Amino acid sequence: MRHTLSILVENRFGELARIVGLFSARGYNIESLTVAETLDPELSCVTLVTSGDDRTIEQIVKQVNKLVRVLHVADLTCEEHFERELVLINVKTESSAAMQTVLSLVSRRHLHVAEVMEDGLIIEATGEWKQINALVKELMPFGIRHIVRTGTVAVWKNPSAEVVGIAGGKRARLGAQQ
Amino acid sequence: MRHTLSILVENRFGELARIVGLFSARGYNIESLTVAETLDPELSCVTLVTSGDDRTIEQIVKQVNKLVRVLHVADLTCEEHFERELVLINVKTESSAAMQTVLSLVSRRHLHVAEVMEDGLIIEATGEWKQINALVKELMPFGIRHIVRTGTVAVWKNPSAEVVGIAGGKRARLGAQQ
Repeated sequence: MRHTLSILVENRFGELARIVGLFSARGYNIESLTVAETLDPELSCVTLVTSGDDRTIEQIVKQVNKLVRVLHVADLTCEEHFERELVLINVKTESSAAMQTVLSLVSRRHLHVAEVMEDGLIIEATGEWKQINALVKELMPFGIRHIVRTGTVAVWKNPSAEVVGIAGGKRARLGAQQ
Repeated sequence: MRHTLSILVENRFGELARIVGLFSARGYNIESLTVAETLDPELSCVTLVTSGDDRTIEQIVKQVNKLVRVLHVADLTCEEHFERELVLINVKTESSAAMQTVLSLVSRRHLHVAEVMEDGLIIEATGEWKQINALVKELMPFGIRHIVRTGTVAVWKNPSAEVVGIAGGKRARLGAQQ
């Protein structure tokens, strides 16, 4: 089963390498990963998708939580949350008929045309992982010249203070150590 | 200066750890990173944002390219490309007046309301890095309960076959070694 983990980590040099290294050392596969800044410039949020049974995931969550600079880890799969992924697709439209067909699909699916080139267009779409898979499958026959997916990100519907890194006992302890 | 690197890598266990480890070992900071599947299940695409002068970036591109399982690396900043980032923002709207103001901002900015809760809503937006920064600044006064950004992804407008991993002399060589 796919699990989406959300990891709040101090934005320090080498921390991402430590998290990713822990997964590879233990033999856990990372299906997708995103890391970007949060409201607090000192913290980053890592969203990571991995597969495994509940027991395996519980183990890896515990191990990631042991990393000193990690403030919070959660398996969002067990919480009320909202997931999305962004995809950019450069589609070939070599004839005007092909362009028409792609544009009608774009309009039917409420997608966004980000850019029109002479012989193709760049489509921007967001959705859940399965929806993006279905869209990619639908566009394949036209010829996809280039595609980039962000991988899943997720937000809590009702986050606790700890989740968003406002309070965080662990952080206070870290502060005291410095 | 911010540089967006696009790295096409074999989807093998531990490859992401090797790339991220190379950045941290050399002291290069990763501002954002996404990794997800491509059309070919054997390949992943890493989009990585880092800062540095042109000479430094040229060096790191060369070093990443030396990794055996990396098929292609490019500094997209020098190429014709299209960049986007996805953000999910859980905004507090404790009064109906606050809800009204946020909804009017949503409509003015052509954003998407992904979910409405009793005392807040989840906004989904895509844009360039600077646009997302501006949006976050605009929503701050309402109270952001949770925010997750994917970091930048980018597609080429006119990709070569090598870029998308179709041809790739390096891959053929790798195949021969196995």
